[in-house]
Parts: sequence; structure tokens; C-alpha cells
Amino acid sequence: MTEFNAKALANPGIRTLSPYQAGKPIEEVERELGIKNIVKLASNENPLGLSAKVKGALQDALSGLARYPDANGFYLKTKLAEKFGVHTNQITLGNGSNDVLELLARTFVNETHEVIFAQHAFVVYPLVTQAIGAKGVAVPAKNYGHDLPAMLAAITPKTRMIFIANPNNPTGTFLTKEELAEFIAQVPQNVLVVLDEAYYEYVSEAERAPSVEWIAQYPNLIVSRTFSKAYGLAGLRAGYVITHPDIADLMNRVRQPFNMNSLSLRAAEVVLDDQEYLAESIRVNADGMAQLVQFCEQSGLNYIPSHGNFLTIEVGSEAAEIYQQLLRAGVIVRPVAGYQLPNHLRVSIGLPAENQAFIDAMANLLK
Amino acid sequence: MTEFNAKALANPGIRTLSPYQAGKPIEEVERELGIKNIVKLASNENPLGLSAKVKGALQDALSGLARYPDANGFYLKTKLAEKFGVHTNQITLGNGSNDVLELLARTFVNETHEVIFAQHAFVVYPLVTQAIGAKGVAVPAKNYGHDLPAMLAAITPKTRMIFIANPNNPTGTFLTKEELAEFIAQVPQNVLVVLDEAYYEYVSEAERAPSVEWIAQYPNLIVSRTFSKAYGLAGLRAGYVITHPDIADLMNRVRQPFNMNSLSLRAAEVVLDDQEYLAESIRVNADGMAQLVQFCEQSGLNYIPSHGNFLTIEVGSEAAEIYQQLLRAGVIVRPVAGYQLPNHLRVSIGLPAENQAFIDAMANLLK
Repeated sequence: MTEFNAKALANPGIRTLSPYQAGKPIEEVERELGIKNIVKLASNENPLGLSAKVKGALQDALSGLARYPDANGFYLKTKLAEKFGVHTNQITLGNGSNDVLELLARTFVNETHEVIFAQHAFVVYPLVTQAIGAKGVAVPAKNYGHDLPAMLAAITPKTRMIFIANPNNPTGTFLTKEELAEFIAQVPQNVLVVLDEAYYEYVSEAERAPSVEWIAQYPNLIVSRTFSKAYGLAGLRAGYVITHPDIADLMNRVRQPFNMNSLSLRAAEVVLDDQEYLAESIRVNADGMAQLVQFCEQSGLNYIPSHGNFLTIEVGSEAAEIYQQLLRAGVIVRPVAGYQLPNHLRVSIGLPAENQAFIDAMANLLK
Repeated sequence: MTEFNAKALANPGIRTLSPYQAGKPIEEVERELGIKNIVKLASNENPLGLSAKVKGALQDALSGLARYPDANGFYLKTKLAEKFGVHTNQITLGNGSNDVLELLARTFVNETHEVIFAQHAFVVYPLVTQAIGAKGVAVPAKNYGHDLPAMLAAITPKTRMIFIANPNNPTGTFLTKEELAEFIAQVPQNVLVVLDEAYYEYVSEAERAPSVEWIAQYPNLIVSRTFSKAYGLAGLRAGYVITHPDIADLMNRVRQPFNMNSLSLRAAEVVLDDQEYLAESIRVNADGMAQLVQFCEQSGLNYIPSHGNFLTIEVGSEAAEIYQQLLRAGVIVRPVAGYQLPNHLRVSIGLPAENQAFIDAMANLLK
């Protein structure tokens, strides 16, 4: 009998995928380093914690958890459709927006295709592309952000999908609605444009693109949103895309029927009505951003101006060492060397005291 | 510009996938039919509801939900590894076992391969096979169950994966440990055998196969389990596979890092220690199974002897109409025509009063 070789049995793109290196739980890090009360500014989470209204609704929903979730997300889709003025058959729900981004790629992309994304863009785009065995085309960044003319020029007959993150993670760069509109108008309709707006709510209302409205004119446009950031549901997993109905129909054939769990359906439904929580999220983020920017300006640190809930700061060639020193000082931030930004650290906006903990620790290192 | 055609852009296997037809929420059905207190015996859920210990633990965990889940499932994997005497690097966690079954197929199967499963076996096997564009090979059932010699004979050089459900859903049929051992010994090691034991806990201890122990001898064996049935966590989504470490390594490259949400990680960890809940689940199921079997015997209804938490009953060529009549009488069961069982209905085991509600409604129809 031939010897067992799992790797030889795996699909080609998967054999060379880098395994995801997940961090340990904070509690484990605290135990190992012998420190307490670590400040985590590493994952662009909402520092307010769960909305109190959501918490109450979830307590009421706990008893029903031995039952399967609603496979159709009937109530949540109805609420989203009302909010955005679309039909429920234009919405596909996901276990976080990671899930819908992956579903899109699996539904439309195969190993004969090319997928375009920007250098420094969200890591999920190259990962899902490689898992499928398609060719990823990373277009060099312009001022850390998307170079849309270069991305247009990268389209070939093999291009099936383009990912655009706006604002982009981990750089926080932002494309204006005029730039986006001009870009989308020039993409052939047999190329799907995935506009990932995970940080949409942090953008000022005046600056937000009317992306959902554009779908009527550009059926190849896909708008992705999440409940993990401004809505504070990262731990529950809730995201969605709004698309042409035919795209939603195809995605829902591939989607696992119970991909969204019962509590995340309920929480998302409730938090959509919690305008106070959303406003507070945005306000706390704007204040915290000003706090970090002021520190950078005063300390002579370069940073990438950000439209998200994080600030990516240039700390120099010792970024990896500074990350470790911050960790030992009880502040977790995110190294972004994997995003070809080896001299930067990404700092999520926390509560004022959390931001100050970072500022104090960093100021101490700069001495 | 060419007209937009989403279907033409979709991958070939997906174009012909049947969209999943999800049911409406019970509340919606009640509203439409104008009835209250529907008894749902349709989805093989645990009628006990959530474990009280889990409920308490989840209430404590609600405040942390704005944070991302632990991508590694550190505590849950540690607990599962201890329970089964395996290493944590042999465990892959999923958003329900549906998620790990799909991950397996996506990691190892492509459009050049064949995947073998039994007629009447769980619908997820053919669905994930078709979504990938691989060829599904459905081997005709023997007495409603798996015909293992015929499945062995179906193996070709193109076969990459075989799904075996034991007990099988929706028939409840069961393969003995001797039958399984003989089968696995004859499968070439370059063919992966996925043993889906979602209903394992309902099988008597004497009859359970030592499947996890077999992995040391047969590295191509994959054992899948779920928390959705006897452990009562269907609404939270928690499942896992135990495999050779190399298989887990490859699956974890494809797995979405936050596929299991924070509450399902916590709930699964807590319920593994709740021996009383598990024992009560098994006892209530055995009693309810006896209750339904006795009714069938007394009524002259054929049924497929079941090792699961459901009983599939032959009601004749009017099964679809009987399903509708039961629904109007306030009892939801599951039609299984989609499983090539047009004359049967699958009835999940509920609490004694729920089972009686089905018995009363069915007896009324038989008059």
C-alpha cells in the first residue's frame, strides 16, 4: 500500500497556502507574560462592547438555541431590505463578511481566472483566490491605497473579479465617490467588482458613496458590509452583500443554509435599530482618531491618514521589536509586515484610556 | 457592452445546483395558518432546549461579543483533545459539521474527481460535490442503508472521497463496527473516508465504533461529529472533525479563521462537561423512540428502524398530502421525497407531549 500523503491529495492552490497563524486568547497571553489587563488595539473591534439593547435581546433568545437558525434570515433580510430600499432577493447573509467574500469567489471564480486586488489590501482577497487555484493579480499601491487606473489596466480577458476595499484595511485609505463611479463605469460587465465597505459607517455621510444605488446601473457591482465593526458584533459573525438578484440566487445555492447562527441573526436585527449605539461608536472613534493623530503629529511619527477605526503608523525598521515591547507593556497592536508594510504598526481606536495606554507606552519607547 | 448574465459567469457545477428551499420561521407559519403552538418535529433538534449550564455560561459571555472569536478555538480544542485522547493538531472546528464537511471537499476534491456516497444519504454530500464540479457517485441503498461492498466496488482511480453517515440521516440506518472496520481496511489510502457520526451519542455505548482510535491505523479516515444533536447547540453552530494531523493542517489553511463564533466555542466547551444533560438527551430520545415505534406497530405503519433521534415512517403515496394535513393540525414533520423516499415522512423525536401530538394527529388522519 502506498504511504499516506495528505498534501499530495490536497488541491494545488491549497498545498502552498500559508497556514493562518492565529494569536492565543488574551487570557493565555496574560498568563504567559505574567501581566494583567492587557489593552487590545489589534483587531479593529468596537471598544464600546456589545450594545445594551442587543445584550437584552440575546438573553431572551438563549432558550431557543437547541433549534436550528432560520436558514433564510427572514427577519434580518426584511429589515436590511427596508433600510437600503432593495428587495430581500438582493441580499446574501454571511458568517461575517469573510464568509460572503469567500462565497463570491467560490461561486464565480475558478482556476482559469484572474482576480485583481491592490497591494496592501485585505488579506482575505489573495487567500480565497489562492484556495480556488485562480491567479491573484496584486496591483501596486499608490500612496498606500488603490491605484484605480492601474487596476483598470490590469483587466484581461481572464479577469473575473476585482476586490476594492473602501476604506481599505490595514491602511485606512479612501476612494472618493467620484473616483469609484468613474472606475465602475469602465469595468466590463462580465467582471464582478466587489466593493468591500466593512468600515463604511466610520466615513462621514457626505463622503459615503451611494454604492447600493449604483447596483441598478451596474449589475456587476457587489456591495459588502459587516456588523463586526461599528455595530460591535465581531464575536457573533454577521455580514452580508447586496447584489443583483441573479448573483444572490447563485450565491445562495452555494451558501451553507445555517451559515449565520441564531444569535447573530437576532443581534444584527436589533442593532440595526440602535441608532444611539451606532452614533456613539462613530463619535468615540472620531475622538480616538484625533487623540492618536495628535500624538503622532507631536511625536513626529508618520501615519497613513485613515477613514477606518484604526491608524497605521510608521514606526521604522524596528517595527517588529516595537510590537514586542508594546506587548510587554500590556498593549497589543497589529504588525502589518504581512501586508508589505514592515515599518508600520496598525493601532485600532479604543476607548480614550486605552488609546492613552498606547500613547504612554509608545512615548516611553521613543525616549 | 454585452448584457449582464450572472449565470454564465458562475462556475459550471453551481449553475445547475438547486437553490436550497428554506422553510419560513415557525412564527411566520403560525401567522399564515392562523394557528398557535406548532409542534416542530422536523429538524432532528434536541427537544430539551439549551442546557441550563450552557445558558448561564453564555449570559456571562455576552459582554465580550464586540471582540473577535478565538480563531484557534484554543480551549475547546484542548478539551476535545483530552476527551478523545488525541492531539489538538488533529482537530478542525466548524460552523456546524456542515462547515467541516464542505471544508473537506474543498480542500481535497476538484472537478477531476469522483465522490462516493449512498442513495438516501445526507444531502450535504451531493451538494458540496456538485458545487465543486466533481462527479457524485450515489450507490444504491440496501435496506435503506449503506451497501458497503457496492461502495467499495464503486471506487475508481478518480475517487478521492467517500462519505459514510452512521447512523444515516434521514433513514436512521446503522452500520456495525465490524462492518465499518472491514470496509475501511479495504479502501486505498489515497481515498479519504469521511465517517459522519452526527448521531453518534444516540447509539448505545456497546454498539459505538471506536472510530477515533482507528485513525492511527487508517490516516485516510476522518471522523466528523456535531454539537447540534444530543448536545443541543443547533442554533449556535458547532461541529468538528478528528483526523490525521496533516489533514487538519491542510483544512485549517482553507478554514475561515473566525468560522466558529465566540458563543458557540464557549457553549461547546461547557456542554462537554454537562454529563447530566447528555444523559437526559439520550434517555428522552430512547423513550420517545419507543413511543413512536409502539404507535407505528399498533397502527400497522412500516418504519425504518432508527439509531438516530428521528423515525422515518412509510405513510404511502399521499405522503406530501399527509405532511400538509399534519401541518394544518399544528405538527411539522419532514417530507423526504428529495431523498428518493416519496412515501416516507421523517419524524424527529420530541418531548413525550410533542410525540403524542404527532401520534394523535396521525391517528386522526389514518381513520
